[in-house]
Amino acid sequence: MKALEWLGDSLRILDQTKLPVTTIYNDVTTYEEVAEAIESMVVRGAPAIGAAAAYGYALGAIQYTGTRVGFQDYMNTVKERLTKTRPTAVNLFWALRRMEDRLRDLYEVEDLDEIRKALVVEAESIAEDDRRVCHLIGEQGNPIVPEEANILTHCNAGALATVEYGTALGVIRAAHQMGKNIHVYADETRPFLQGARLTTFELMKDNISVTLIADNMAGYLMQQGKIDLVIVGADRIAANGDTANKIGTYSVAVLAHAHGIPFYIAAPTSTIDLKVPSGQEIPIEERNPQELRELFGVQTAPLDVPVYNPAFDVTPAKYITGIITEKGIVSPPFSVNLLKIMVRS
Amino acid sequence: MKALEWLGDSLRILDQTKLPVTTIYNDVTTYEEVAEAIESMVVRGAPAIGAAAAYGYALGAIQYTGTRVGFQDYMNTVKERLTKTRPTAVNLFWALRRMEDRLRDLYEVEDLDEIRKALVVEAESIAEDDRRVCHLIGEQGNPIVPEEANILTHCNAGALATVEYGTALGVIRAAHQMGKNIHVYADETRPFLQGARLTTFELMKDNISVTLIADNMAGYLMQQGKIDLVIVGADRIAANGDTANKIGTYSVAVLAHAHGIPFYIAAPTSTIDLKVPSGQEIPIEERNPQELRELFGVQTAPLDVPVYNPAFDVTPAKYITGIITEKGIVSPPFSVNLLKIMVRS
Repeated sequence: MKALEWLGDSLRILDQTKLPVTTIYNDVTTYEEVAEAIESMVVRGAPAIGAAAAYGYALGAIQYTGTRVGFQDYMNTVKERLTKTRPTAVNLFWALRRMEDRLRDLYEVEDLDEIRKALVVEAESIAEDDRRVCHLIGEQGNPIVPEEANILTHCNAGALATVEYGTALGVIRAAHQMGKNIHVYADETRPFLQGARLTTFELMKDNISVTLIADNMAGYLMQQGKIDLVIVGADRIAANGDTANKIGTYSVAVLAHAHGIPFYIAAPTSTIDLKVPSGQEIPIEERNPQELRELFGVQTAPLDVPVYNPAFDVTPAKYITGIITEKGIVSPPFSVNLLKIMVRS
Repeated sequence: MKALEWLGDSLRILDQTKLPVTTIYNDVTTYEEVAEAIESMVVRGAPAIGAAAAYGYALGAIQYTGTRVGFQDYMNTVKERLTKTRPTAVNLFWALRRMEDRLRDLYEVEDLDEIRKALVVEAESIAEDDRRVCHLIGEQGNPIVPEEANILTHCNAGALATVEYGTALGVIRAAHQMGKNIHVYADETRPFLQGARLTTFELMKDNISVTLIADNMAGYLMQQGKIDLVIVGADRIAANGDTANKIGTYSVAVLAHAHGIPFYIAAPTSTIDLKVPSGQEIPIEERNPQELRELFGVQTAPLDVPVYNPAFDVTPAKYITGIITEKGIVSPPFSVNLLKIMVRS
């Protein structure tokens, strides 16, 4: 089950809003459809959003019916539209910049079909890099997982959040494949229930032992000594190590700290944004209040209740034990060591 | 809107599982129905459960068709059934003991109707005491609420959790009635959504400014300086001040502590259980895993996912700033001061 699959001239997107009840794929052929899929969280997860946007950019080029002269302006519009879908995950901007850089390299090419092919190849390469990087994150992270670990994770940083394998769940998959007797507790992750719907679903498919809990149960589990380790993904990592991730991650980090439990981020280096000095400068998306008033059409609160619905929060670097990347595990001080890993080839 | 109302020979119970979408009252005439209403959380909240059980005991007596000889054994069965509904909230056992004590005082009375009347009067008196006590809790707690306070509460410790007015929401109501410009953030409180469904609903009816958040957003609000004060209810307070309350309370307490935010419990002294030395001895109910797999019949997770669903957790005394009771605010050291307040008339 893949979040994304390139079909030659269309992008197959798994509708993650319907899982695990129904498995629906949408084959889309326009950048507008890709933008809408990202906005509505049909595809979600920082690395998957990045890859989807790259394919959306390539689809934009395929859609174009004009001449070479107007192409660059048109592609700026395509990029603009895809850029504005979601503000927090930096992989979106990273992937679009990579696509734009590729297009810039082709400034002397006149044949639009040649350009289209090159952009598809670049999007495929972004997706392929993500596959490779997730497996490397798993390998790099495996040593921090004890033999009999009880691991808490929040949201879904799994195969569904990436092109395959996952980041936080990549580390968990790698530990499982090494024969470690691990057990995962999955926060359900309100309001979108990525933990309840996606993480449990993925892990059960892979026969990795998992227990679902409500977000508000994590502290109680820690108090009882039932959690050895926390691993979560990331949407953007600032230069000082402050990390934006799904709302609730900050609470989990404070709780882990209070209980002396190691707290790890697992993310590709494409999630590191050295241009952002600290978490304070990371834009935090606020989503539709309706997400807290009803769930799958069922009313869960007064329909006119005021709601605060931030989609992410920022965990300060001081609560983070280490950041697991494809190039290795970054330890504090992050301001120094994130820079080092970014320049390492 | 009342959680409970005595109608002379039946008990009207508001079905809190259906709020705020529909307002349904069940008029019940048997102790078995009362027991089922408590088990299924049609009536919930420690003080309301206590009053409901008292009325259930009285209904048991009214139902009885035998002679005086078999009455005591029968009433033991009634008490047993009501006792076994839910294990954590001590008000249940406190109210049933009070009913049983009343019955014991009547050991010389032969006329069953006289006994029935006396038991109804006792149940009414328990309910009346709860009304009075909640208003006193509001008065006692009001001084700790700053003029422009942003208050976080978890679950529903409101009118619906009591006979009227509420405990934590009693303090909030009193502060509002004093003209303080307060704002409440209500944790939605998974899995049963008492915060989303009941607390917001109650506060909106009283024109008290409220914003709904998911449980996992509380830490982020605190980090942003948006919370001045936490007030929650209690299901049982141990002799050392450790407090069992709705699952998630512990996490909120740790978060409040980490951010230097005062954390108060509001509860009647009937919630204090001096026979239990510490939180470790408080039994914690685990509820049906299905509560985390579906919501109002809508699937929210794989139907066969393993679930951990504790209904309560225990907040250690060290995280509690004070316990607001009808007799005054109890401050640390709780082991000394809880004892003092319990002997005070």
